[in-house]
Amino acid sequence: MNVEKLSHINEQGRARMVDVSGKPVTRRTAVARSRIRMKRETMERIRQGRVSKGDVLAVAQVAGIMAAKKTADLIPMCHPVPLKSADIRFYEEGDEVLVVEAEVKTDNVTGVEMEALTAVSVAALTVYDMCKAIDREMVVSDTCLLSKTGGKSGDFVRREEK
Amino acid sequence: MNVEKLSHINEQGRARMVDVSGKPVTRRTAVARSRIRMKRETMERIRQGRVSKGDVLAVAQVAGIMAAKKTADLIPMCHPVPLKSADIRFYEEGDEVLVVEAEVKTDNVTGVEMEALTAVSVAALTVYDMCKAIDREMVVSDTCLLSKTGGKSGDFVRREEK
Amino acid sequence: MNVEKLSHINEQGRARMVDVSGKPVTRRTAVARSRIRMKRETMERIRQGRVSKGDVLAVAQVAGIMAAKKTADLIPMCHPVPLKSADIRFYEEGDEVLVVEAEVKTDNVTGVEMEALTAVSVAALTVYDMCKAIDREMVVSDTCLLSKTGGKSGDFVRREEK
Amino acid sequence: MNVEKLSHINEQGRARMVDVSGKPVTRRTAVARSRIRMKRETMERIRQGRVSKGDVLAVAQVAGIMAAKKTADLIPMCHPVPLKSADIRFYEEGDEVLVVEAEVKTDNVTGVEMEALTAVSVAALTVYDMCKAIDREMVVSDTCLLSKTGGKSGDFVRREEK
Amino acid sequence: MNVEKLSHINEQGRARMVDVSGKPVTRRTAVARSRIRMKRETMERIRQGRVSKGDVLAVAQVAGIMAAKKTADLIPMCHPVPLKSADIRFYEEGDEVLVVEAEVKTDNVTGVEMEALTAVSVAALTVYDMCKAIDREMVVSDTCLLSKTGGKSGDFVRREEK
Amino acid sequence: MNVEKLSHINEQGRARMVDVSGKPVTRRTAVARSRIRMKRETMERIRQGRVSKGDVLAVAQVAGIMAAKKTADLIPMCHPVPLKSADIRFYEEGDEVLVVEAEVKTDNVTGVEMEALTAVSVAALTVYDMCKAIDREMVVSDTCLLSKTGGKSGDFVRREEK
Repeated sequence: MNVEKLSHINEQGRARMVDVSGKPVTRRTAVARSRIRMKRETMERIRQGRVSKGDVLAVAQVAGIMAAKKTADLIPMCHPVPLKSADIRFYEEGDEVLVVEAEVKTDNVTGVEMEALTAVSVAALTVYDMCKAIDREMVVSDTCLLSKTGGKSGDFVRREEK
Repeated sequence: MNVEKLSHINEQGRARMVDVSGKPVTRRTAVARSRIRMKRETMERIRQGRVSKGDVLAVAQVAGIMAAKKTADLIPMCHPVPLKSADIRFYEEGDEVLVVEAEVKTDNVTGVEMEALTAVSVAALTVYDMCKAIDREMVVSDTCLLSKTGGKSGDFVRREEK
Repeated sequence: MNVEKLSHINEQGRARMVDVSGKPVTRRTAVARSRIRMKRETMERIRQGRVSKGDVLAVAQVAGIMAAKKTADLIPMCHPVPLKSADIRFYEEGDEVLVVEAEVKTDNVTGVEMEALTAVSVAALTVYDMCKAIDREMVVSDTCLLSKTGGKSGDFVRREEK
Repeated sequence: MNVEKLSHINEQGRARMVDVSGKPVTRRTAVARSRIRMKRETMERIRQGRVSKGDVLAVAQVAGIMAAKKTADLIPMCHPVPLKSADIRFYEEGDEVLVVEAEVKTDNVTGVEMEALTAVSVAALTVYDMCKAIDREMVVSDTCLLSKTGGKSGDFVRREEK
Repeated sequence: MNVEKLSHINEQGRARMVDVSGKPVTRRTAVARSRIRMKRETMERIRQGRVSKGDVLAVAQVAGIMAAKKTADLIPMCHPVPLKSADIRFYEEGDEVLVVEAEVKTDNVTGVEMEALTAVSVAALTVYDMCKAIDREMVVSDTCLLSKTGGKSGDFVRREEK
Repeated sequence: MNVEKLSHINEQGRARMVDVSGKPVTRRTAVARSRIRMKRETMERIRQGRVSKGDVLAVAQVAGIMAAKKTADLIPMCHPVPLKSADIRFYEEGDEVLVVEAEVKTDNVTGVEMEALTAVSVAALTVYDMCKAIDREMVVSDTCLLSKTGGKSGDFVRREEK
């Protein structure tokens, strides 16, 4: 075959799903977090169940868990992972910040950081969607990995959390 | 962190994908069934391949098997399961009842009851879709689990079937 | 081209998505219904929010609405429909029957019967999934179209409902 | 029908896809933005194309646009929208902040705010995924709607942007 | 905002879903074709329905039509299109070539060429999958657009077909 | 149960996902290839990054890898496979042929031939989509399996490649 590579376009930056075949299966967990800043009144209405599109947190909870299962369909180079557990919690920090945390587990050759981050991101977007008619200026911030366990790179706890 | 839980909304009824990490992998099977009641003439046309949208059972068969693979994408708290086998059968019960049965297998930490139930439900809906122009009053009934094997809760056979 | 058709296999029963191009857009609505028969105790626990996987009806509600949007991805010959409204209601009929009803609307050239039927079917399957650890013998029955409006075939109300 | 509503569980907080049938179609646009804070070295490697999983921004661009098309599949009460345009831009703000902006357009009865927000969120998560082996502490912040046009509620420009 | 563009990476080759808002809706059709070259014996078994995984053409037909509906989910910069019709035909050309043709229609601002091409490609892959245990060396060739109508660029008929 | 089988329609050609439960997990690899024939000028513009929809190969690369992960959702009787690696390469053969090759790996009971074939097919379709405004007559050909390893049927190398 007389083949000339399109190397200037293709070689250097070529994206791939990296090879993890043969890696050992270990217990993997990850916890991620997002903060949603909103008007005091919006928070109050969520608390009291007075948002006309429905129970904001119940819907966001389901959306986050379902999104965790879609992670490999959303993030191009992410390996598919058979999730073994997914849980989402909501907290208030003062009167204007709603915190969403997701904890995901599996037994797998790759970790579940992206699954936890996807869960909180989609849960936060769902809160936005449910409340946007009353508070278009909500901001989602501080989306990050709080901790993870398992895998070759070992355990990790974000410094602010230690 | 000064955190106050939204417990009245969120804590008690909080939905989650329950933790099955570390559970042993076993052979799992499940058989589910639905009945579709239709006009005698509708059944006759299915039998004879005279439904204008196409071969009803061939399409329903494919739909049911593909739906089994989408179960975790449809049922929010369902764990993703790597199916190892899926088969669908159609039977007649008299002249007005079409029965659809699905048998699903895997080797996994969770069972495949929902996969079998999703397969028969979507196969039945597909029969409805293919025939609705000629019989809008079809009814899908008796969707249930006939049997399952494997897992901690052990084997199960529905009483009517014993 | 010397072409011989595979007519014995392919021609007669060939499935297709029927041609609806050029059909007029009209307001379409559809209402569908399923009944879930369960143990009295299961119903009681749903009512009281004492099912360990979470708030059964909140999750089933979200699952049903999301499934309505996936209808064309589940039912092979179904046209994609841009839904304009989807709502799900739960009722009790006595102590052992939970009823789920879905009402769907659009402005489109095809109807939304399949979307309403898919919504109730997946909502019912979700109820099964949330409760199956405590009541494996639940049965989903009487899934049917209660009414529809719009389109060339006109309005329809199921006789038992008139 | 002797029907008793499960009102304490279901009625008040019942989520629904609100009815937008019959609303007029107008041109809709939305611009959303996220910021990704990372190590200086990570930014440098993205700039130079030295991230081993591939060209970070090219992959994130595709991921964001594909995610915009999946919005109604991710956000439960979101109406499906036929997108007419989707574009994503990346900027640097100093040496440690990568900004992602998405602009989405359609002609529709509902807006595309959620599509723009989903695009930037998934693009940002993809940046995280591509770089997480070298910078696990990246944070995604300031995800918000910058502007929108069209629809009954009229145009909107976020104050900081005016 | 002090913003410096990542122009060397991002600007020139930046992929986008091009803006088609405001374009007029017209009737669109497209016909595409693939050829699958196989062993004479494989063709014979397809004809006779003696392939153990099932009726090859019935399954490929459904797969092709369902894939047409997924086009915008597969092809990154493709606009979502509400299909109004999809049909697939199989022909034999001699004893070793199975031809698959797809015809797709819509009323839309963009065309359906990609939908027709996706339909034949996935139908052909499905034929491969159903028969691969008996004929691993099948080749799919000549996948191309045979004709299209509608849109600003006007009608097109591939020369060999005129 | 008085059951009469719809055997003339259903039994012989009944499609199923064949039972692979209990089969041993082995390392599986597959390499597939497609050729895209185009005008010399089209190739030149791809090389130079002068296609207005964006960087053709970067987008096709991502599309192919994401499609590999969707294989079981596209090919009806295909078992879901947890991919462990996916890589795509582009080559030129002369001035008018662009070659796309995909290499996929897993540790599984079934092989990844369909995943590799799906990856090259969707990557090729994406090249078509990105360039169709300038070259509607492109043809995708020679899509086939080049090699595979693992599984009961053993290793395979396509003859032309030996």
